[in-house]
Amino acid sequence: MGTARGTAVLLSTRANAMADWAEALGALDPSLDIRLFPDAGDPADIEAAVVWTEHDMAELRRYPNLKLIVSMGAGVDHLLRPPGPPPGVPVARLVDERLTQGMTEWVLLNVLRFHRQDPEYRAQQAARIWQELPAPDTAARRIGILGLGALGGAAARALRGLGFPVMGWSRRPKALADVECFHGADGLAAMAPRADILVCLLPLTPQTRGILGGELLRSLPRGAYVINGARGGHVVDADLLRALDTGQVAGAALDVFEPEPLPADHPYWSHPRVFVTPHAASITIPRSAAPQVVENIRRMRAGRPLINLVDPAAGY
Amino acid sequence: MGTARGTAVLLSTRANAMADWAEALGALDPSLDIRLFPDAGDPADIEAAVVWTEHDMAELRRYPNLKLIVSMGAGVDHLLRPPGPPPGVPVARLVDERLTQGMTEWVLLNVLRFHRQDPEYRAQQAARIWQELPAPDTAARRIGILGLGALGGAAARALRGLGFPVMGWSRRPKALADVECFHGADGLAAMAPRADILVCLLPLTPQTRGILGGELLRSLPRGAYVINGARGGHVVDADLLRALDTGQVAGAALDVFEPEPLPADHPYWSHPRVFVTPHAASITIPRSAAPQVVENIRRMRAGRPLINLVDPAAGY
Ligand SMILES: NC(=O)c1ccc[n+]([C@@H]2O[C@H](COP(=O)([O-])OP(=O)(O)OC[C@H]3O[C@@H](n4cnc5c(N)ncnc54)[C@H](OP(=O)(O)O)[C@@H]3O)[C@@H](O)[C@H]2O)c1
Ligand SMILES: NC(=O)c1ccc[n+]([C@@H]2O[C@H](COP(=O)([O-])OP(=O)(O)OC[C@H]3O[C@@H](n4cnc5c(N)ncnc54)[C@H](OP(=O)(O)O)[C@@H]3O)[C@@H](O)[C@H]2O)c1
Repeated sequence: MGTARGTAVLLSTRANAMADWAEALGALDPSLDIRLFPDAGDPADIEAAVVWTEHDMAELRRYPNLKLIVSMGAGVDHLLRPPGPPPGVPVARLVDERLTQGMTEWVLLNVLRFHRQDPEYRAQQAARIWQELPAPDTAARRIGILGLGALGGAAARALRGLGFPVMGWSRRPKALADVECFHGADGLAAMAPRADILVCLLPLTPQTRGILGGELLRSLPRGAYVINGARGGHVVDADLLRALDTGQVAGAALDVFEPEPLPADHPYWSHPRVFVTPHAASITIPRSAAPQVVENIRRMRAGRPLINLVDPAAGY
Repeated sequence: MGTARGTAVLLSTRANAMADWAEALGALDPSLDIRLFPDAGDPADIEAAVVWTEHDMAELRRYPNLKLIVSMGAGVDHLLRPPGPPPGVPVARLVDERLTQGMTEWVLLNVLRFHRQDPEYRAQQAARIWQELPAPDTAARRIGILGLGALGGAAARALRGLGFPVMGWSRRPKALADVECFHGADGLAAMAPRADILVCLLPLTPQTRGILGGELLRSLPRGAYVINGARGGHVVDADLLRALDTGQVAGAALDVFEPEPLPADHPYWSHPRVFVTPHAASITIPRSAAPQVVENIRRMRAGRPLINLVDPAAGY
């Protein structure tokens, strides 16, 4: 080694994504000394770890000089659950245009699917029935969004742009143009009975786990729709299935599950009013996400404030 | 009669829409003397006819003082085909926010359905397959829109708003913000090979009948998608089915057919890559459309220029 080297960065992700990440980071900063997990070399070299959200946090305690962990996703629930990141090492996540775009599209597709009675029209086609259903009324289809962060805020803007009345819920008070904003437990109780379509884009934290359960589902207008693009742990599956079977919930679009992959015998697969996608709502594109990662590595080296930092106390 | 009466207006539509139209017009102008077809009263009284697009134009020759025909739809192909409206009587059509909104939503739902690989994900769900497909790339999914009028223009704006590159084709040269505009036969030949998704929102005229046929379909990129919200007569069904079967066209969403209702034995009903809706993309809401109709009746009475006029020579 001897000569001056760039920052040693540990890269850990699924085998099929490793080369793309290494290439994307290297293209932006050829001086980076990228080590592909598990070939970390001397653990003392590693100053930054760029890891898939499922990387074992206990493993990261092997690197005594680690000063930055970057998650390759928007959600960090995997990283923060015990044992959590090594004490004192900051964790950043991705806030990425392509990730946001993907989620916005997935939400719009599913909102429009339900709003435009597509499940009914698919069933009519299968039965060769030609029958116009009542015209959907966009101004009367109120959307409630749980979470008004990078993803929820973008979904709110896109839905407003299409003319839907939009409500949103966050932890702290918030103001978004043309969005009726709520926060805290009282806010949720006020919003839910008016949400014809409920979209969940929350981080998974101890406070939000199981939020899409019996109590919230019962408080929706009868025949509401539920769209979950956040985490499987937000849903109480038995409660959602019951609500679907009684007609309290008229349909659900689910991208995330606990566990994943969704087990082959799970009732969601064959439920006629459940639309399953395999955690594909928004897929990280290394080339798109790499610039903010390199930026954070540079900030870490220069001792400047990091971007897209996670607050371990808040859990996201 | 004797005392001063308002304009006598003949109203003709499907039985289930008659009362809504009469109420919507009457609410805006209680002086209107609305006659429900076939109870026209004295034919000489009738000065305006507000008719469903399927009303028989020969019948309208019975009213010697008719000075305005308003179609209850955006398309007027039914009205203009021989024998056409009584000579010299102007025809207006609807340009209506709710109609436009409905079509925009229908187009977005189907663009997102194909763009987001929803048919593949539905098939995977049916087979209980958990498999992430390659991430869709919005910036690389180019949309071509045939027709840049009230509906095509709105669809173009909405698709641009979501980040899709958009091209559009009209009869006369046109300039729309952030839309690559083409016109005429050469323009279509230049646009088609780059249209990953082709959306038809043209009026049906002698020039546009059969446009979605072998030649145009062959000139699309292999695996393109076709979305037709305009008129069934735009499609050459045998050509589209052949293109679907060879994989030249990867999927089609069709709202309109010739004839309608789509016959029970038509291959579209059971085709796995054809998405049928029963001419429900955009449904006229009398309350929303009535103001422009009343406005045109007033203009006709006052001899002022009419709005939303059709050009019989152009055919739309
Ligand atoms: N399916 C997929 O492919 C996919 C892809 C990416 C992300 N995701 C999921 O989407 C989640 C959201 O991502 P993001 O980037 O939008 O996160 P973010 O920017 O951190 O936004 C989180 C939002 O949730 C709110 N929130 C958090 N805890 C809350 C609570 N207890 N009560 C009420 N509101 C609460 C926050 O409120 P404040 O504004 O007050 O902080 C904030 O508005 C991620 O955590 C991840 O799990 C899924
Ligand atoms: N499925 C449904 O529920 C539904 C509902 C409403 C309407 N529609 C259909 O949608 C059609 C379009 O409605 P609209 O209100 O948007 O009509 P519009 O405002 O009259 O626009 C028509 C567009 O088509 C273009 N065009 C016409 N002939 C052409 C030709 N030969 N070559 C190239 N471009 C040509 C026009 O070009 P210029 O700009 O140069 O004039 C214009 O841009 C209606 O005619 C109707 O058939 C269907």
